[in-house]
Amino acid sequence: MIYREASDGLRNLLGIPAHYHIFFTGSATEIWERTIQNLVDQSSFHLVNGAFSKRFYETALQLNKRSLLIEVDPGQGFNGDIDIPSGTELIAVTHNETSTGVSLSPTFISSLRKKNSDALVVIDAVSSLPYPDFDYNAADAVFFSVQKGFGLPAGLGVWMVNDRCIERSQQLLARGITIGSYHTLPSLLATEKKYQTPETPNVLAIYLLSKVVSDMNRRGMGKIRKETEYKALILYQALDNRKDITAFVTDKALRSATVIVAETGNLTEKVRALLQENGLDPGDGYGTARHSQLRFANFPTHAREHFELIVDTLEKL
Amino acid sequence: MIYREASDGLRNLLGIPAHYHIFFTGSATEIWERTIQNLVDQSSFHLVNGAFSKRFYETALQLNKRSLLIEVDPGQGFNGDIDIPSGTELIAVTHNETSTGVSLSPTFISSLRKKNSDALVVIDAVSSLPYPDFDYNAADAVFFSVQKGFGLPAGLGVWMVNDRCIERSQQLLARGITIGSYHTLPSLLATEKKYQTPETPNVLAIYLLSKVVSDMNRRGMGKIRKETEYKALILYQALDNRKDITAFVTDKALRSATVIVAETGNLTEKVRALLQENGLDPGDGYGTARHSQLRFANFPTHAREHFELIVDTLEKL
Repeated sequence: MIYREASDGLRNLLGIPAHYHIFFTGSATEIWERTIQNLVDQSSFHLVNGAFSKRFYETALQLNKRSLLIEVDPGQGFNGDIDIPSGTELIAVTHNETSTGVSLSPTFISSLRKKNSDALVVIDAVSSLPYPDFDYNAADAVFFSVQKGFGLPAGLGVWMVNDRCIERSQQLLARGITIGSYHTLPSLLATEKKYQTPETPNVLAIYLLSKVVSDMNRRGMGKIRKETEYKALILYQALDNRKDITAFVTDKALRSATVIVAETGNLTEKVRALLQENGLDPGDGYGTARHSQLRFANFPTHAREHFELIVDTLEKL
Repeated sequence: MIYREASDGLRNLLGIPAHYHIFFTGSATEIWERTIQNLVDQSSFHLVNGAFSKRFYETALQLNKRSLLIEVDPGQGFNGDIDIPSGTELIAVTHNETSTGVSLSPTFISSLRKKNSDALVVIDAVSSLPYPDFDYNAADAVFFSVQKGFGLPAGLGVWMVNDRCIERSQQLLARGITIGSYHTLPSLLATEKKYQTPETPNVLAIYLLSKVVSDMNRRGMGKIRKETEYKALILYQALDNRKDITAFVTDKALRSATVIVAETGNLTEKVRALLQENGLDPGDGYGTARHSQLRFANFPTHAREHFELIVDTLEKL
């Protein structure tokens, strides 16, 4: 069974506890919407530090929730105490801001749940999983899409939710609130029991995910994490060794291991051209940083030699 | 551009008028939900004659609409005058009931729009397109998923809507009604202009669709329709020539060309075994008809020789 192979494989790879369910959707963008529909009555609370965490917040507004946010500038993040209103239904955290290369520490995220035990804590881990070692017992839902860290074609979101989420959605439904149709948590749960989905899903993507996960399980997450950290370390070191090109995220505790953003300023096109000469193709900076930054994805599929070549190229600049 | 190639190709293949937009979703199941969200304020009206048309209706109820239905027994359909309440916002028609093999005539569907000019007419054409020759000017939205008539892996719904649908969704939005988040018609429209999608979509499926559509355009819809009709004709004839196995749909005007359901009764397993000996694998009957019917898909990908072999096998029974 394709569903079961992917689901069991992920559970093993990431250490997902038994009280979590693993559901498949069309995208992580869809999961933003399903999260708000299924888990929020009046309002959610969003930690916003870039374009993607902002869109999660805006999704809640589009669904007519009176959601709140705490926002910091691009390149900044969250790590200390945050004043979250009591009675908050759901706290939405973007573990890795793909737009800025800021990553929040799993320890910080766990602290949110401990200090706000009545709220559901939901982690957007789109551009970081499988790398982060989350304490799933200190969160309620975690989700990602397969085209980032799992290196697969786009078109599949993976939504991992615990029993508290299921219960919350059932409560909303019992009160006559619409929580959607085919992709509600109760509907996903009913079909998951048979390792099926409510709709005819992207079977090919689920199949490919099961194979990639199986391969990652063979390599082992310990090794994958170490390699990810090595590749990030040498690139950040190369950036820290220069003055003309720097790491956009200055607070080392907030630097993402999986999306590394270089502040390249006027040198952007020169750096890009040099990298391209060596067969390397960095991503554009996001949005308004399009012409002043370059972004380097550091996923399990990116080879160590690849990063050593980036570093060599930057050193020759 | 992949989106544009698929979109232009479909427009050419099916004769979609210029005032239609072509959008991509995760599934046709999603389109049931998006249709109700984006186009219905209070209630929709559903023509129900099987499990799939029923689920479309139930989707509306799940979204807290006070929708209405007219329902006939499995194997029956609609072709005469139907009493639709004045002021109906949207009429939902399932062109081809995959569960029973009943197909409504495009002329009948066009008559609905003519008699109810204020209502939007929405056609679920999941298991029939590209075969039917709809008058798109006598409908407002038509949708399908790619794993049926286009023979592709599942995970992509195609939603074709006209400007009346766009306007209706904009009106609901202006009144403060939530119509969803990323997959609202205004959001799909804004990104369609750049041949993009609101989320990272199933790019591989859109790409494959563009290639299959291009191939169908080379063969020509005239030829594809004639072949479909030939294959359907010989199978229905073979069924009509027997007494022990019959066509489930008795009204010839309602018989689907693309999903042919045989009432096989006690012979079901015997017929299935005989077909399988010849390398043919018929589908189960749907739901409670699982052990008394067999279903034969007749899509462009199914060869003429394939159907001749089915007929030969049935004749030897």
